[in-house]
Amino acid sequence: MTDRRGHSCLSFLTDYGTRDGFVAACKGQMLRHAPGVPVIDITHEIPPGDVRRGATVLADTAPELPDAVHVCVVDPGVGTERRAVAIAAGGHVLVGPDNGLMVWAARALGGIDAVVELTNASLWRHPVSRTFHGRDVYAPVGARIAAGLPLSEAGRAVDPAGLVRLPEPVREVSAGLARGEVHAVDRFGNCQLSLLPEDLHAALGSPEPPARVTVRLPGGARSVAVAPTFGAVPAGEPLLFTDSAGLLALAVNGGSAADLLGLRVGAPVELALTSAKHMGE
Amino acid sequence: MTDRRGHSCLSFLTDYGTRDGFVAACKGQMLRHAPGVPVIDITHEIPPGDVRRGATVLADTAPELPDAVHVCVVDPGVGTERRAVAIAAGGHVLVGPDNGLMVWAARALGGIDAVVELTNASLWRHPVSRTFHGRDVYAPVGARIAAGLPLSEAGRAVDPAGLVRLPEPVREVSAGLARGEVHAVDRFGNCQLSLLPEDLHAALGSPEPPARVTVRLPGGARSVAVAPTFGAVPAGEPLLFTDSAGLLALAVNGGSAADLLGLRVGAPVELALTSAKHMGE
Amino acid sequence: MTDRRGHSCLSFLTDYGTRDGFVAACKGQMLRHAPGVPVIDITHEIPPGDVRRGATVLADTAPELPDAVHVCVVDPGVGTERRAVAIAAGGHVLVGPDNGLMVWAARALGGIDAVVELTNASLWRHPVSRTFHGRDVYAPVGARIAAGLPLSEAGRAVDPAGLVRLPEPVREVSAGLARGEVHAVDRFGNCQLSLLPEDLHAALGSPEPPARVTVRLPGGARSVAVAPTFGAVPAGEPLLFTDSAGLLALAVNGGSAADLLGLRVGAPVELALTSAKHMGE
Repeated sequence: MTDRRGHSCLSFLTDYGTRDGFVAACKGQMLRHAPGVPVIDITHEIPPGDVRRGATVLADTAPELPDAVHVCVVDPGVGTERRAVAIAAGGHVLVGPDNGLMVWAARALGGIDAVVELTNASLWRHPVSRTFHGRDVYAPVGARIAAGLPLSEAGRAVDPAGLVRLPEPVREVSAGLARGEVHAVDRFGNCQLSLLPEDLHAALGSPEPPARVTVRLPGGARSVAVAPTFGAVPAGEPLLFTDSAGLLALAVNGGSAADLLGLRVGAPVELALTSAKHMGE
Repeated sequence: MTDRRGHSCLSFLTDYGTRDGFVAACKGQMLRHAPGVPVIDITHEIPPGDVRRGATVLADTAPELPDAVHVCVVDPGVGTERRAVAIAAGGHVLVGPDNGLMVWAARALGGIDAVVELTNASLWRHPVSRTFHGRDVYAPVGARIAAGLPLSEAGRAVDPAGLVRLPEPVREVSAGLARGEVHAVDRFGNCQLSLLPEDLHAALGSPEPPARVTVRLPGGARSVAVAPTFGAVPAGEPLLFTDSAGLLALAVNGGSAADLLGLRVGAPVELALTSAKHMGE
Repeated sequence: MTDRRGHSCLSFLTDYGTRDGFVAACKGQMLRHAPGVPVIDITHEIPPGDVRRGATVLADTAPELPDAVHVCVVDPGVGTERRAVAIAAGGHVLVGPDNGLMVWAARALGGIDAVVELTNASLWRHPVSRTFHGRDVYAPVGARIAAGLPLSEAGRAVDPAGLVRLPEPVREVSAGLARGEVHAVDRFGNCQLSLLPEDLHAALGSPEPPARVTVRLPGGARSVAVAPTFGAVPAGEPLLFTDSAGLLALAVNGGSAADLLGLRVGAPVELALTSAKHMGE
């Protein structure tokens, strides 16, 4: 459906919600400039202006789509001096504001290959609204790239080192201890941590996961089973598992870890060997 | 767009919600393995783990789609011993967990023709997450079937009688009385009952619906008009009607029957002839 | 993908929500009768029966889609005597109930060219439910038109003057004062007014916008900056801007104008020159 230089699909992630017509207005541009290219909605429920949340969902999801152009709009600085950019990474292209939203996804896709500032206004919808660059800049440019437009025609190449970046989440490993934070909370209340399984192995000095770990949270420490899936622990019990994005996460079988453990994004989490006195918890 | 053995579309029903990237990750698999096959979202707002709710929405909706492969994921037992299956019914195929989610839909589609346990791991996404079989098993297998893969290649045939089934909702008809329960509550607060129009006719001994029936609910009995549509009763008044899935349902013109009558799924409901002393209610 | 008389896409706006299977059931009809025609969801989150809200979102969004057939269902009178109609406007076609839902969109698309009452029942899904004309009338007829069916085959031509119309929102301009109302509140709490930038210019007797205006609201008057975009005022401050649909709107940088100013749809709003005594507010 796309020409020989085009992409397999467009993806679309915003904080627009689904109550208004904003998403559809952008899809009108996608249809105009990339007819026949399927559009996959990642989510439009990013809380308004929450760039970190958008970056997290995008990084978890973008690698799951084949050969995509990702149109990404969490853009509280719309209409100000912040730049609009396209980032090439691992055969994908990310199109959106230069506010950190897309850098983690670029890393998850294999790293940044090139960055272009979107300066070619002939590709945009006109007149350009000062408050709706999703419709007027990102969607038409992303769609044209998906349909085969070379990235170099979208604007001028800029130095990837100059991209705005979000603070990296805490991730510290020492002997006996892995320190991280809650990186994301999903619909089920599962709490994705900023730690990888190998961080836990390194901290605990073992290539195999322990049966239990002590999880130190703002509300206190508790021993938690390390398990492969929810149903491996009794209903209502917490577990530490490796989630579908490959990160450690806390969950509760049939319940919400965020609710049970009182966790939200950014909460500090430490994982340690469960000592004998904790085993009965 | 599909090959000669393929299906017209994929449908997709989950409890994943739309805040995270889970739905899109699955659609990445669908796009890889069934490019060009349209995907119709039924809903992703099934409450987490609510298999009955998923089964109800699926049974109401699946027959409305032409010649579809339905990917169905309400799967609290993901990663445990519960089986993954594909059910052929009336030219459609239902793909998901063997936990009762898909049996009512199979019945609505005309009855089960064949069941295959999904044992052919070469069709799956690898590595297979222990917590995300929607992405790693159901979506790729469903998409391949939609694109023309014979069901028999997805795994080994199993006995339909061995499928896990949900308890059937109450549906009892006697002289003068039809006993059922609230089977589903929709967005408008309309309460679909587990009773058919012919159940009412049989109970009341008449091929024609009465003008009113007495509805006995946990909160008491009241006389309710039997009417073809909402606007046939005054605003704010309840009515008993035949809903778009062919079941009896309680509604309120311009309001919510669930709110007005204090009903939720599973609430017992009895329908009886309205006696003279109720007529003034 | 469509035949030579067909349209580029279908759009779909309802108050069905996304918890049930209603949207998918309609899309089954669209797929049957317009295979290959892309379907763009505008929104399904119109509050139940809120025809004004549906009309507002539709009018803002319909012109953004190329050459579309818009299937529109906010239809509290379903199954009663209200007519089902198709309205041709600016190359687009709007299909839905004759209750005012589509007239503002037709105006935004360039004005009504023709109206047909949907009387050709051979185009409908049968049996026709008395409560689900979205699935049984609007979707199949809209899809057939999108696939190339001439409008004249959908039913009999009727006089556009006979269409049901919603009350027009307040919009009064006098020397020194523009009086309007809150026309829509979006996901971000931005409050779209029933006033155009030229109304403000006319009221204030200047082709250029002033730096500030006094906004008189039910809760009192305050001076508000006139600015091109959110980030042009300090965080937490309100502004008056021209929104992406071309209407004046109140917003708060990084916040919700609806919350800060206590506004909801229909609230009266007056814009006046900021006098010296207001400048310090």
